[in-house]
Amino acid sequence: MTLALAQARAAAARDEVPIGAVIIGPDGAVLAADGNRVEALKDPTAHAELLVIREAAAKLGAPRLVDCDLYVTLEPCPMCAQAIAFARIRRLYYGAADPKGGGVEHGPRIFAQPTCHHAPEVYSGIAETEAADLLRGFFRARR
Amino acid sequence: MTLALAQARAAAARDEVPIGAVIIGPDGAVLAADGNRVEALKDPTAHAELLVIREAAAKLGAPRLVDCDLYVTLEPCPMCAQAIAFARIRRLYYGAADPKGGGVEHGPRIFAQPTCHHAPEVYSGIAETEAADLLRGFFRARR
Repeated sequence: MTLALAQARAAAARDEVPIGAVIIGPDGAVLAADGNRVEALKDPTAHAELLVIREAAAKLGAPRLVDCDLYVTLEPCPMCAQAIAFARIRRLYYGAADPKGGGVEHGPRIFAQPTCHHAPEVYSGIAETEAADLLRGFFRARR
Repeated sequence: MTLALAQARAAAARDEVPIGAVIIGPDGAVLAADGNRVEALKDPTAHAELLVIREAAAKLGAPRLVDCDLYVTLEPCPMCAQAIAFARIRRLYYGAADPKGGGVEHGPRIFAQPTCHHAPEVYSGIAETEAADLLRGFFRARR
């Protein structure tokens, strides 16, 4: 999560919403690490989670990330939660909860839906305060 | 929808699940057209809808596709439905319903969630029979 937080801070420095994500491969090494790039890439799907899933899948040469774990600083949105299910991520660790836009413990609760055919183990509240402070600081500076 | 169906058939010819999507720009011209490429790109997020949204956003140089409409042969999954909301798609037209994996009229019904901050106008059942027949034929041949 330390590395995911570093990616979130790097995103903030690029004027992106500060969210960072990391995928750990089956061997325990970092497979992909990135932050939100919606503005830089002009891509509404360029959330940190989607970027690392795509990078890890390209590295493994497979659309399913078997035995891989994902760390992200904020509760994934419904788009990213469903992508995590499609990628067959084993364990999802996230920092702060997101009542307004989250899709894991809020809103559609993607992993609990009958249309979701794989659910990772979910661990929330990891470095929650630091992740939430980063987001709060970012939005406070822009209001 | 005729062009989306052609993209779905092209996907089937590549041994991909036959789903196709098209985005029409504000001027009424085709902005992006593609089919599912999960296997070819080894990317679990490479659904037809995500590919055309990313292509259209790159062409417009903006993460929001203002006044753009999306045609897709199957009811979007929750990942794609949320991406459609993020992209601010104006109207969504789709063919067959997808009770097992859909996210618009099934499962999480993304656009009706409190965590969804933009919902397109939705028109379903467009060329439904042809879209559903394509999918049925594809899966029948593989079982």
